[in-house]
Amino acid sequence: MSGSGSEKKTKKEVERLPPKESFSEWYHEIIQRAELMDIRYPVKGLYVWFPFGFKLRQLVYSKLREIMDRDHDEVYFPTLIPETELGKEGEHIKGFEDEVYWVTHGGLDELDVKLALRPTSETAMYPMFKLWIRSHTDMPLRVYQIVNIFRYETKHTRPMIRLREITSFKEAHTVHRNFEEAEEQVNNAINLYKEFYDFLAIPYMVLRRPEWDKFPGAAYTIAFDTIMPDGRTMQIGTVHHLANNFAKTFEIKYETPDGDHEYSHQTCYGISERCVAAVVSVHGDDLGLVLPFEVSPVQIVIIPVLYKGKEEAVMERAKMLENSLKSWGFRVVLDDSDDRPGAKYYKWELKGAAIRFELGPKEVESEEVTVSFRDTREKFRIGLDEITAGKIYEWAEEMKKRLRAKAFDTMKARVRYFDSFDNPEMLREWINRGVALVHFCMSEECAERIEEGTSGGILGSFEEIGEWCEKGKEGRCIICGEKGVLSAVSRAY
Amino acid sequence: MSGSGSEKKTKKEVERLPPKESFSEWYHEIIQRAELMDIRYPVKGLYVWFPFGFKLRQLVYSKLREIMDRDHDEVYFPTLIPETELGKEGEHIKGFEDEVYWVTHGGLDELDVKLALRPTSETAMYPMFKLWIRSHTDMPLRVYQIVNIFRYETKHTRPMIRLREITSFKEAHTVHRNFEEAEEQVNNAINLYKEFYDFLAIPYMVLRRPEWDKFPGAAYTIAFDTIMPDGRTMQIGTVHHLANNFAKTFEIKYETPDGDHEYSHQTCYGISERCVAAVVSVHGDDLGLVLPFEVSPVQIVIIPVLYKGKEEAVMERAKMLENSLKSWGFRVVLDDSDDRPGAKYYKWELKGAAIRFELGPKEVESEEVTVSFRDTREKFRIGLDEITAGKIYEWAEEMKKRLRAKAFDTMKARVRYFDSFDNPEMLREWINRGVALVHFCMSEECAERIEEGTSGGILGSFEEIGEWCEKGKEGRCIICGEKGVLSAVSRAY
Repeated sequence: MSGSGSEKKTKKEVERLPPKESFSEWYHEIIQRAELMDIRYPVKGLYVWFPFGFKLRQLVYSKLREIMDRDHDEVYFPTLIPETELGKEGEHIKGFEDEVYWVTHGGLDELDVKLALRPTSETAMYPMFKLWIRSHTDMPLRVYQIVNIFRYETKHTRPMIRLREITSFKEAHTVHRNFEEAEEQVNNAINLYKEFYDFLAIPYMVLRRPEWDKFPGAAYTIAFDTIMPDGRTMQIGTVHHLANNFAKTFEIKYETPDGDHEYSHQTCYGISERCVAAVVSVHGDDLGLVLPFEVSPVQIVIIPVLYKGKEEAVMERAKMLENSLKSWGFRVVLDDSDDRPGAKYYKWELKGAAIRFELGPKEVESEEVTVSFRDTREKFRIGLDEITAGKIYEWAEEMKKRLRAKAFDTMKARVRYFDSFDNPEMLREWINRGVALVHFCMSEECAERIEEGTSGGILGSFEEIGEWCEKGKEGRCIICGEKGVLSAVSRAY
Repeated sequence: MSGSGSEKKTKKEVERLPPKESFSEWYHEIIQRAELMDIRYPVKGLYVWFPFGFKLRQLVYSKLREIMDRDHDEVYFPTLIPETELGKEGEHIKGFEDEVYWVTHGGLDELDVKLALRPTSETAMYPMFKLWIRSHTDMPLRVYQIVNIFRYETKHTRPMIRLREITSFKEAHTVHRNFEEAEEQVNNAINLYKEFYDFLAIPYMVLRRPEWDKFPGAAYTIAFDTIMPDGRTMQIGTVHHLANNFAKTFEIKYETPDGDHEYSHQTCYGISERCVAAVVSVHGDDLGLVLPFEVSPVQIVIIPVLYKGKEEAVMERAKMLENSLKSWGFRVVLDDSDDRPGAKYYKWELKGAAIRFELGPKEVESEEVTVSFRDTREKFRIGLDEITAGKIYEWAEEMKKRLRAKAFDTMKARVRYFDSFDNPEMLREWINRGVALVHFCMSEECAERIEEGTSGGILGSFEEIGEWCEKGKEGRCIICGEKGVLSAVSRAY
């Protein structure tokens, strides 16, 4: 399915990936070679999920669904939003008007009212919420959907990162009685997203976006950003407190116990397939994908090493092992293709199979198997009778710890605190490969000076400071010396 | 969430549904009242899945996924198809040009190439299949996706039946070496769809569409049609043999073992949310939804009947029962709301909870529970210690048998064989409430005569004849007396 005949395939398979250091080329190649997405679709910014990539997506999203399902209901709202609704909230439409796709014709007829392809679903949902919310007892309302959304991107596009069709947007929308209850939900949402990214062993910064960079229509925006291998930051989740801004526009009102009528307060929060891009980018290495065990489409690969005359005994053992592992519920492939073992190792390292079992005549004789972990590539032998479901889970757990430790170390190494702007050139140089932390007053004026001096931008102020950072929240603004909060400066995806 | 305050809600809940005999009104009301879809979205033909409806959809589609996953890979192709690709296959574009939505603008810019919202994905997928298929070893290729598709419907729209955004289109696409292997896949697909609809206890006719009604670009089309309560037929699945028609257009060629180059042959087959509409329509009754146990969002409801002073003992028992049922993996609601028991019975009958347990002081005293099945509304008492997971499954199995028997009886009663066209008025009258079977030569000329005489149309010839029908496949055409095959005449949705 890689688009080359079997002969060419073998040749292609021994070509090495570009080193991860050349992140842009590495990412471009791994997407295609590990069969995550086909980038050859004939429209810019639109890509095809290969079966293998789609499986990875499903596994990542089934965790997200599990987390959401605890106290949200899944729903589905239409993709097409009439211009009249999309334009209602002034700030909101201003934020999106440059990047909305417009449907103007049905068949050969011109439509009376143009329809937007949802860039996000506030304006599809909130006219309905107006009908759903009448009384204080109708709240909290918490719904979510996982849908395709559309942005007319004019910048450079990139699979799973910057797209014209975001295929997997999880957007949650909630309605509450007042500002405080909505704020509580903001905090709940932050915790849900932390749990999700902790599960994926992806480090993140939880940052409050500056005023000029918040979601159009929101009171404030909290974002999750991770640091990519090239030092740029990538936003991988956002949580917005909408106050009663949209409620006023869409007339979402309720009757209080006293018979008064009040506007509701709302939140919304979203995660796109950038969560998959983060898994690929943060954990991958020069050989290909490295995936947390739980989301690996192929968790275990068994490679029989066949020598003449010994094939049968080896294959028999390999099949027994496969059956046991499958019966325990693992996703296993017994690779009995005609490729040489080396080509198989290469293939399954590229695709991020977490555990590899090799079985040759020697192993069969000694009732053993050779084990190799994808992340460390450590190799050792173990008795076949020691392979139990418990043992596999134990290994998976240890791998997760290693992935997390490595990812956090890498992140720490990419973050540096600056206490002075005397030499902007130092900052500029640093943010070409990492994130600068500074204390900052959050004024637009000072932000402009940083931007001019460094070609990076104020990403946001730390909402909470991770254990990996030793700096305090409060301090003097690096530019003006006024009261400031710890903030991140970066070039962002 | 039904959009009325709690006071109004109680009032609304005691309003009866229209009788199912008035099918159109009944369907309109049940969609909204059972909280399947909100029909108040401000664009014609677009609807909102409520949480309860979405859950039903998920359960139905998880069965469909399970069936497909056995030998298909799930993928995702873009929603937007460039005009240049959509127009390539002449027949195909002619079939769709009146109902395609066109995206003409991105932001304020006019697009160079107009983009169609996929009405179906042949023209999105097949340019990529050209890249994926090189050698005979690359086949069979079998993929599917579950996506939203769009049709600019100018006719009367109806939730889940005739939509402008079909939210849940399962479309499978396969590629094979030759016509025969593709035909084998057509037969496999028919069997998969039979299994799916048998699981849902939905009766169907498997019909070959006449030449003039096949899928645009196909060699032939086999369709699944069910009979709705008003006697009209509804297409609930199609399987198309595409021969090498699309392969020629999109240059899907492969190298044979001998080094020759041949065009591939293809099939595609689809099912939309009409499968959910069929479940609602075929099994529902005057009181609301009747759902097969496996797809019921609430399989079991427990209703405590509380009398003063006995509340605690009853609630304790009810909670114990709830915990047991949940621990066995059933979807259970313990309805401890303030509504009266009668209102609760009404609500859960409307929503199709398959099994109802009532627990009052009498039951607690005798260590029993009152059981009621949604389909028969039969009521009986049983010892609490007799409630086991096995017992529940047994009941579910029996219910499925009853649903199936009832649905097939209803279908049989709506089908009548006609051996003469001497009195077209009789046929016309009949197909206002059912399906007419006739032997028919499949010529367009004879079809026109039937259409003029009856206001119904030739739906297709029986590909296989169900056990419910005693007529043979072969016979003389009811119009011209030439050789004919058993065919169905109906008014179709």
